[in-house]
Amino acid sequence: MRAALYLSAGNVVVDDVPDASLSQPTDAVVRVLRSCVCGSDLWSYRGVINRAERSRLGHEFMGIVEEVGDEVRTLHPGDLVVAPFKWSDNTCPACVDGIQSSCANGGTFGAPGTDGGQGEAVRVPQADGTLVAVPGGVSGVDESLYAALLSTSDVMATGLHGAVMAGVTEGSAVAVIGDGAVGLCAVLGAKAVLGADRIFLMSRHADRAAIGKAFGATDVIAERGDEGIAAVRERTGGLGVRHVVEAVGTPESWAMAVGMAREGGAIGAVGMPHTMPELPLFQPLIHHLSLNLGVAPVRRYLPDLISRIVEGTLDPGPVFDTTLPLEDVAQGYAAMASRESIKVMLK
Amino acid sequence: MRAALYLSAGNVVVDDVPDASLSQPTDAVVRVLRSCVCGSDLWSYRGVINRAERSRLGHEFMGIVEEVGDEVRTLHPGDLVVAPFKWSDNTCPACVDGIQSSCANGGTFGAPGTDGGQGEAVRVPQADGTLVAVPGGVSGVDESLYAALLSTSDVMATGLHGAVMAGVTEGSAVAVIGDGAVGLCAVLGAKAVLGADRIFLMSRHADRAAIGKAFGATDVIAERGDEGIAAVRERTGGLGVRHVVEAVGTPESWAMAVGMAREGGAIGAVGMPHTMPELPLFQPLIHHLSLNLGVAPVRRYLPDLISRIVEGTLDPGPVFDTTLPLEDVAQGYAAMASRESIKVMLK
Repeated sequence: MRAALYLSAGNVVVDDVPDASLSQPTDAVVRVLRSCVCGSDLWSYRGVINRAERSRLGHEFMGIVEEVGDEVRTLHPGDLVVAPFKWSDNTCPACVDGIQSSCANGGTFGAPGTDGGQGEAVRVPQADGTLVAVPGGVSGVDESLYAALLSTSDVMATGLHGAVMAGVTEGSAVAVIGDGAVGLCAVLGAKAVLGADRIFLMSRHADRAAIGKAFGATDVIAERGDEGIAAVRERTGGLGVRHVVEAVGTPESWAMAVGMAREGGAIGAVGMPHTMPELPLFQPLIHHLSLNLGVAPVRRYLPDLISRIVEGTLDPGPVFDTTLPLEDVAQGYAAMASRESIKVMLK
Repeated sequence: MRAALYLSAGNVVVDDVPDASLSQPTDAVVRVLRSCVCGSDLWSYRGVINRAERSRLGHEFMGIVEEVGDEVRTLHPGDLVVAPFKWSDNTCPACVDGIQSSCANGGTFGAPGTDGGQGEAVRVPQADGTLVAVPGGVSGVDESLYAALLSTSDVMATGLHGAVMAGVTEGSAVAVIGDGAVGLCAVLGAKAVLGADRIFLMSRHADRAAIGKAFGATDVIAERGDEGIAAVRERTGGLGVRHVVEAVGTPESWAMAVGMAREGGAIGAVGMPHTMPELPLFQPLIHHLSLNLGVAPVRRYLPDLISRIVEGTLDPGPVFDTTLPLEDVAQGYAAMASRESIKVMLK
């Protein structure tokens, strides 16, 4: 089969690899309909982290179950499914707590020895605990929803998780730092899923801000640093916001998050650059902040998000502004690395 | 009147100062029955932070209302009261949110221009929003309870707040890092107020561990660093604890807190050294931790804690292992600085 391979920094190709196949009785093989390029895929592409030559790429995908192992109970060949970017057994203590991203038997697609999402098919370990079938199936779900469904594999669930960790509920005011796909999905999650009333999106890119507004941002703030903090404080009676989603992960974005949070406020942090910063704790202490960090347990959110998309009440599809065939994956990496594209979908 | 004054590092005296007196109509003057020395008082005593010569000292006290301003409604001369270490109006947005330690009109006793707790009397700003009267009053409350009541002024409320921020509830397992007065009170708060079932106290001092056990610690762990983490993990089936109280505030104690927390766990951090550390965020992110920091809003907890003490269901009094007359305050500072004493009460 064909799959994307990492060769070296700036050099990604599609080549022949062994067909995806069952290895464990709990595996399934999924034929990929849509996958995409993640911001984290760019770390090695930009050369800021090392990656083995000819290693597989991609961890977000949706598709059709082709084959299941003997112990798979809930999935059947032909099912239309979404995969979280990490697999999980959904039964270990962390999974039972809803932290499937910390599953004791989990892992990330594209890691050594696994298939990546950017390929024609993927072996999915722990299939029952990982994949979620889309109600209606292949025949009942219009292809126009595939982009939205794909987004739940990572960015939509991750953005929503940031808002959940920030404590956003009906009527909340929330600030979202980061106008990438995750930040935009945080806006949408805060608005459409959690019912936030006032949403500040920190953005200075017209194309991203436009999607943010369509997703529910009430205020787009172009200022950064202390000026960005001041702009949010001015618009909140000087108090700051109770809820902040940190979707960047740099020292500068953390300083903004801390600076614009109201006394006793909460930060939901999903920003994960290739190296996480160190956070000075004095300001969080004296302003009594709750800092909630986490790799999103996508599996927890998938059933609800998929239902909303199929029912037509949620559409994160617009975060994909570029669609390319798998064979043109190199072009997709280049477009995201140059920030020409917010997020690239592969067919 | 007489009050403790800071002269220079290692040099604290009691001297004559102007009598405490009403300045604002919202003030009260409280005659001090008991006050104490705080770990944070030792910062300047040890010379690690600067403090003005002849500045007033102490921020924890309980006593009798002597005089109230024209606008004070809830307090009357003769009331037996406890003061939080910070005053607050209890009506601003932060106070309404229960974060009285962030009061827009608040401040800390002993700051420039204010009276310190280590003196014969204290002018209390925002008296209605700050002081809490003890049910029963002077005639109804035995002097033997004064130590316990005094502890609610800071350490008991601060320790409890750490456990609250860590999410401790009925039946929880919790680890407490720090065996100072705050850590010991966190043990007591987790046990007697919140109903924790299993309490790990990190301690290698026999005297402190003994108080910790009396307060409810089920496991005293002498190991530190990675060995301390391993000891807690061994005792929790390898999973770690859901709730950790961080009552030290050093890079080492934070590393322990992060290392022993279960996936998805919460840290309640009240440890406040003279300089707060910077926290590497990668481990909290991948282990999906909630880091809740705050200067304890003592005022929020006072009514409940005072009731429990008067009713005889809570006794944090044993955290004071030394009692001295105010005139011997220098001896108290020396005893705490040398760690001979856990916490010194002044009569």
